[in-house]
Amino acid sequence: MTATPETNATRGTTEATATGPTTSMNQENQVTGATIWLTGLPSAGKTTIAYELAGRLREEGHRVEVLDGDEIRTFLTAGLGFSREDRHTNVQRIGFLADLLSRNGVKTLVPVIAPYADSREAVRKRHQASGAAYLEVHVATPVEVCSERDVKGLYAKQAAGEISGLTGVDDPYEAPESPDLRIESHTQSVQESAAALYALLAERGLA
Amino acid sequence: MTATPETNATRGTTEATATGPTTSMNQENQVTGATIWLTGLPSAGKTTIAYELAGRLREEGHRVEVLDGDEIRTFLTAGLGFSREDRHTNVQRIGFLADLLSRNGVKTLVPVIAPYADSREAVRKRHQASGAAYLEVHVATPVEVCSERDVKGLYAKQAAGEISGLTGVDDPYEAPESPDLRIESHTQSVQESAAALYALLAERGLA
Repeated sequence: MTATPETNATRGTTEATATGPTTSMNQENQVTGATIWLTGLPSAGKTTIAYELAGRLREEGHRVEVLDGDEIRTFLTAGLGFSREDRHTNVQRIGFLADLLSRNGVKTLVPVIAPYADSREAVRKRHQASGAAYLEVHVATPVEVCSERDVKGLYAKQAAGEISGLTGVDDPYEAPESPDLRIESHTQSVQESAAALYALLAERGLA
Repeated sequence: MTATPETNATRGTTEATATGPTTSMNQENQVTGATIWLTGLPSAGKTTIAYELAGRLREEGHRVEVLDGDEIRTFLTAGLGFSREDRHTNVQRIGFLADLLSRNGVKTLVPVIAPYADSREAVRKRHQASGAAYLEVHVATPVEVCSERDVKGLYAKQAAGEISGLTGVDDPYEAPESPDLRIESHTQSVQESAAALYALLAERGLA
């Protein structure tokens, strides 16, 4: 695997901005990839916010992929369990994929729990090494709110003793100490959360 | 995971072709992705041809990734062995990754043995479903030539009884019946093989 340099297509696009009919959009940014990792507890709202943001970015002409945790698990990381080691491998593998996409111009949204600080740090370092932008977003919904939402019924199952190892309840979640953005999803709408994230991208020259 | 539509960036780039200083290159094609899977025996020359082609494409401004079998194995598919089932899983996982890249505008070269016809067919179908271009290239170097080259010493080890399950010797290789291109790498130089592949891409509007 080798890094891809900035292409002439990028430069050509920049030139078009000055003369083309679509000057309202910053076309140069559309080929600037980035990984936006949304970490947080189950039912924190990670996936919902990711798809809300994805819709807006796509409308604006960005290439976008959402690496949905469950979908990835059924395919790319099938066979991995929920031990600390397997969770780490899962996050590294998704991080590998995200880096590959983002360094090729894709806005890659990753709504995946990623409970361990060292796993997230390793993913950040991989992006630093390849030169791809990487943003860590903590969807900081309190566990009390998450367990009431309980989108997948996991909190109920844990309470009933049917499952164990639920992140934030009887399995560790190491909250990021200094994420690029912390979203208090329980105090605002999904649209507001996605808008805050969009504003961060714009501030970093990525949207 | 969701498909990415053609972006306005693509159109902007096309416009630039008419006015920019880089009109000698077909910039529209530079954002058209494709997976080029090079299947063949160990030491057939798959990786060498892939990197030769990658260099030319990169020079022309294409986004390019080479999903090198050994490198992928150490990371994305660690833990998989060489049973029929594991080889199938390996190929599907790499196919998943290649599809994701190619539908996002990347020329994705995959020099990976992929010994089973049904595994390769599943990868082709995945690309058809997503709308990404997919080309199957058979690097058809005869086993006698491969075992003489023996880049990784695998044929020698098998002959010495140190390993077993070597594709084309004591493990199956189902040669493609109608690949998009068959390369007789033993009758021509690496440059000639890569040029034949480049010509195919050009013919399909991909280079």
